[in-house]
Amino acid sequence: MSLIVQKYGGTSVGSVERINAVAARVHAWQAQGHRVVVVVSAMSGETDRLIGLAKAIQVQPEPRELDVLLSTGEQVTIALLSMALANLGCPARSYTGGQVRILTDSAHNKARIRDIDGARIMADLDAGRAVVVAGFQGVDENGNITTLGRGGSDTSAVAIAAALKADECQIYTDVDGVYTTDPRIEPKARKLERITFEEMLEMASLGSKVLQIRSVEFAGKYKVPLRVLSSFGEGQGTLISFEEEVVEEAKIAGIAFNRDEAKLTILGVPDQPGVAYKILGPISDANIEVDMIIQNVAADSATTDFTFTVNRTDYPRAMEILKQSAADLSARQVLGDDAMVKISLVGVGMRSHAGIASKMFETLAKEGINIRMISTSEIKISVVVDAKYLELGVRALHEAFGLSEAA
Amino acid sequence: MSLIVQKYGGTSVGSVERINAVAARVHAWQAQGHRVVVVVSAMSGETDRLIGLAKAIQVQPEPRELDVLLSTGEQVTIALLSMALANLGCPARSYTGGQVRILTDSAHNKARIRDIDGARIMADLDAGRAVVVAGFQGVDENGNITTLGRGGSDTSAVAIAAALKADECQIYTDVDGVYTTDPRIEPKARKLERITFEEMLEMASLGSKVLQIRSVEFAGKYKVPLRVLSSFGEGQGTLISFEEEVVEEAKIAGIAFNRDEAKLTILGVPDQPGVAYKILGPISDANIEVDMIIQNVAADSATTDFTFTVNRTDYPRAMEILKQSAADLSARQVLGDDAMVKISLVGVGMRSHAGIASKMFETLAKEGINIRMISTSEIKISVVVDAKYLELGVRALHEAFGLSEAA
Repeated sequence: MSLIVQKYGGTSVGSVERINAVAARVHAWQAQGHRVVVVVSAMSGETDRLIGLAKAIQVQPEPRELDVLLSTGEQVTIALLSMALANLGCPARSYTGGQVRILTDSAHNKARIRDIDGARIMADLDAGRAVVVAGFQGVDENGNITTLGRGGSDTSAVAIAAALKADECQIYTDVDGVYTTDPRIEPKARKLERITFEEMLEMASLGSKVLQIRSVEFAGKYKVPLRVLSSFGEGQGTLISFEEEVVEEAKIAGIAFNRDEAKLTILGVPDQPGVAYKILGPISDANIEVDMIIQNVAADSATTDFTFTVNRTDYPRAMEILKQSAADLSARQVLGDDAMVKISLVGVGMRSHAGIASKMFETLAKEGINIRMISTSEIKISVVVDAKYLELGVRALHEAFGLSEAA
Repeated sequence: MSLIVQKYGGTSVGSVERINAVAARVHAWQAQGHRVVVVVSAMSGETDRLIGLAKAIQVQPEPRELDVLLSTGEQVTIALLSMALANLGCPARSYTGGQVRILTDSAHNKARIRDIDGARIMADLDAGRAVVVAGFQGVDENGNITTLGRGGSDTSAVAIAAALKADECQIYTDVDGVYTTDPRIEPKARKLERITFEEMLEMASLGSKVLQIRSVEFAGKYKVPLRVLSSFGEGQGTLISFEEEVVEEAKIAGIAFNRDEAKLTILGVPDQPGVAYKILGPISDANIEVDMIIQNVAADSATTDFTFTVNRTDYPRAMEILKQSAADLSARQVLGDDAMVKISLVGVGMRSHAGIASKMFETLAKEGINIRMISTSEIKISVVVDAKYLELGVRALHEAFGLSEAA
């Protein structure tokens, strides 16, 4: 008998029928002798409806009151799911974030969890009840309602699992696990049975949207075994584990990619201290996030060339700002291209296996794909290439590293 | 400078536009130097929408979870109204029932308020903020969310006014006050500037739907001055006061009526102890509420006749039960009529003014209206007449007692 925390997102509880289906699933786990805590999001569409009401009144809604408003979304779901469970003869009790008490800081709309009191939940579990908790929300120390920001329900589930020392935190989504790459790009993509926490962190930050990166960080910090699985089908999903030895054999866990890269280059900047700040400072002041940064010494060696990437939607403004900086710095030229993509290999196996980078570059070269930028970390290699090569590059790498075969 | 508690019902906050209008009204009171606490209901239609969701899952929703669900309705309104107030430059803060803390018993769906902690509200008022509180809800001593049952927002407002020792509790509705009778029946009906608490209680229990009877009882118990006024127009509304002397001059405050009466009579029942119970016990066991009861000694004096009224919708079942009782009691005959109405004169002036009953009977007789039943209390006289005489009777009495003229 184990203690399981399950999290169901907005799509999984998007209608009365789906709530009943979730109840049946929870009941089945209980019937197998497990103790189950369920964390739920608002029904899909509800949060947007509430935000619409708020914005009809205030262009920039009061942060404190927005949290009072939005937290009702999850509160509706916990009540309905508890009723659905009772209907199946499975006694259940619902709790809002404040009732649990999930204590957060006071940063409305983007609060961080500080502490969770597990006593009330444990008492219900001991009494044989399922416990249904509203995700995404908490209270600060003055009892004000707070929310964790979008996607925060994953974080709630992981934090509750950590507080209860749960055996596993199961995140139910509309996909049935983490794949070696996006199956829409490479039909041969294989579902991973396991992936390490570090790999999952890289995959999440590199564009794989299965899990919120914050919840993965949280799970890592508190050593909570996480499992991603489908709320619509059966199957074991993917376990995000901390046991590196088991997966060491697989050199590469998967291929992540980001479609929306834009590259900007400023050529012939005087090679002086502080020049990076002079170029990137104004970009950052405009709230534009910079992803990869590369600096080369130019041919004449008194100047330097500077290249960075931003999200494609930020490209026009970033270019405008960069042209201004180029004038201020007397740079030679500004170049840009907004049709770029980033492809990344991720795997803890890289640490102990040499030659992965060269094999990657060789594979891409064979397909005639020109690499525009390279960036590496301990467990990933990212390359920026022309957008038109995305599918070709992903498939070639997937094949070259044997990712379709079971590990 | 006074402390005012205002309550706005679902229709008054039924849309973004109406919430903005309520904010403007609250702001105007604040601008005049008053301290304002606002109690609101769910936006009209929202409670029904939520009940619909619950019933789609469970025919008889779990009472505890139904309260978790329904309480979100008012929570949405408090957030939106606080935003609307902030938008007008009027700092405001919202509180759920649990946040205030409005402590109730644990009777879910029909909880009773036990205690209200006014400290948090007073601190906000002292800081110059308007305070917006969710009506209809509270928490029990274990922190479970409770609701007071439909119409409970009036009770919340009165209870908060009592706890804060407010100078006045203003109930904003879609009518502009309490009238001498329903203006749809008698266009000359006059709005009362004042009515006593006892008269209001009688009016409410006799079918005048302006205020929930429970909130009037509460106001009476805690001596809270209540005012009923329109949330759409201007005007002073009607004050429900405790100063009887002021209104002593008016013999009659108003005429209430109930359209849905049905009369049942059992003739020739043996006149023995316990016979009333034998007749009414089975009716009450069937959850049928009995309104007026009259017992006469019959002509032969060894038997008695027994007449009572029920709501028209309960008539068929009540008749069925009564026929069974008649057989058991060997009664002579059972009679019934489901097209009856009750007309009531209400006024504390009756206590000191004789002849009101005879004037009432005379007035009805002049119009050829036959009185079928009579019942009196210290401050009201009710008669049951054929349904077709409702309008004629109300207008004749309104005229005879000079109710169109200002008191």
